[in-house]
Amino acid sequence: MIVGLGPGPAEWMTPEASAAINAASDVVGYGPYLDRLTLRPDQRAHASENRLELDRARLALKLAAEDRAVAVVSGGDPGVFAMAAAVFEAIEEDPRWLKLDVRVAPGVTAMQAAAARLGAPLGHDFCAISLSDNLKPWAIVERRLRAAAEGDFVIALYNPASQARPTRIMQAFDLLRGAKAAATPVAFARAVGRADETLTLTTLGEADGSLADMATLVVIGSSETRCIVRDGARPWMVTPRAYGAGR
Amino acid sequence: MIVGLGPGPAEWMTPEASAAINAASDVVGYGPYLDRLTLRPDQRAHASENRLELDRARLALKLAAEDRAVAVVSGGDPGVFAMAAAVFEAIEEDPRWLKLDVRVAPGVTAMQAAAARLGAPLGHDFCAISLSDNLKPWAIVERRLRAAAEGDFVIALYNPASQARPTRIMQAFDLLRGAKAAATPVAFARAVGRADETLTLTTLGEADGSLADMATLVVIGSSETRCIVRDGARPWMVTPRAYGAGR
Repeated sequence: MIVGLGPGPAEWMTPEASAAINAASDVVGYGPYLDRLTLRPDQRAHASENRLELDRARLALKLAAEDRAVAVVSGGDPGVFAMAAAVFEAIEEDPRWLKLDVRVAPGVTAMQAAAARLGAPLGHDFCAISLSDNLKPWAIVERRLRAAAEGDFVIALYNPASQARPTRIMQAFDLLRGAKAAATPVAFARAVGRADETLTLTTLGEADGSLADMATLVVIGSSETRCIVRDGARPWMVTPRAYGAGR
Repeated sequence: MIVGLGPGPAEWMTPEASAAINAASDVVGYGPYLDRLTLRPDQRAHASENRLELDRARLALKLAAEDRAVAVVSGGDPGVFAMAAAVFEAIEEDPRWLKLDVRVAPGVTAMQAAAARLGAPLGHDFCAISLSDNLKPWAIVERRLRAAAEGDFVIALYNPASQARPTRIMQAFDLLRGAKAAATPVAFARAVGRADETLTLTTLGEADGSLADMATLVVIGSSETRCIVRDGARPWMVTPRAYGAGR
């Protein structure tokens, strides 16, 4: 079972995910995700480093092939920039693994948690792009950012910056500034649902890429996205259901 | 509280959503979503028709302004083609509503449930487009489909067909056939998580739009999406994490 733990708090973890963890003899995952769980003494935790998704997937499949009840855990939704793809890639390596009963338990992903806090920025057509170029050429990221601007999608950016490459998000903003209005609303949603949650609302013209780290989800509006100003509180960021109604 | 009930089954409804329903004095929503809930005798249900999102939002805000504890319910995630945007649009109509304590409880949306069943089709950059043209010109749908093909995104299509306009999905397939390979994997995921769940895997060249209705989520692969064939079971649909690795 490939299990999504959601963005962090227990209130965002589905009952299916909780039941899958509970039923597992072995839980495989990136260390910080395992740290969120309280396992029983009879359950084995297999922690590994961040970038080793394929090793993690192989270990999980090997254990499952030994008739262990395995849960592979991901933050957010395992299907969105997370462990599900890695497990299926690993399955292709060994025909015996094709016979395993593999299931995916979806979860709330970072962009949904961010959207919930911000108002309704994803209320209309949107796209999700990972700025990580570990596994894809930067040229495809640029092509997708251009296409997203051309299609006037709301854009959710995952992995906007890492310690190794802190400037990806600046490059993305620079590219989008050439294609979208400077007044386009932009939000930085960091660690949503966790103790150090931070939300920053700005515009594409003013957006400071250095606010983003690996725990940040960046949302960039479409031409229709607007901010609803409130007294004494952060504005709501909303993409209305209708397109072109205000023009 | 604007609450996402998830795609259907209780195991996909977050504890936060359950708690919000439980704490509500008034629950406002489209009839079939209210029918999923077991309310207490002291809770009032306010059911309305499908298209009347803004009326529903106004009623909820009016009740909240009378100090009622209101839950507005949506299927899936209220932030994704659902009630959150309608509520914030309504809030703009009356400055008194700006002072209300409005919160959004995210949920698992149809594309995530479909992806979980199919394998990992959303494992890389993707976009979500609603084919409904009730509130937007069809020209913007076409522009977004073209941009999505240009960006080689995986495409999740919501509201692919309605009784009034059953041919939207055929038009979308026709447009995409001009821009993407005929062998591109396509999935029809209908009523995922419900008793009448149906999953159909095909290709863009062969895809039959008449398989889609309003309960269907259509997923169209990127150039990297592939099917992993299994003995005696539906193939897995997977978009690998790496881009261009197979070429």
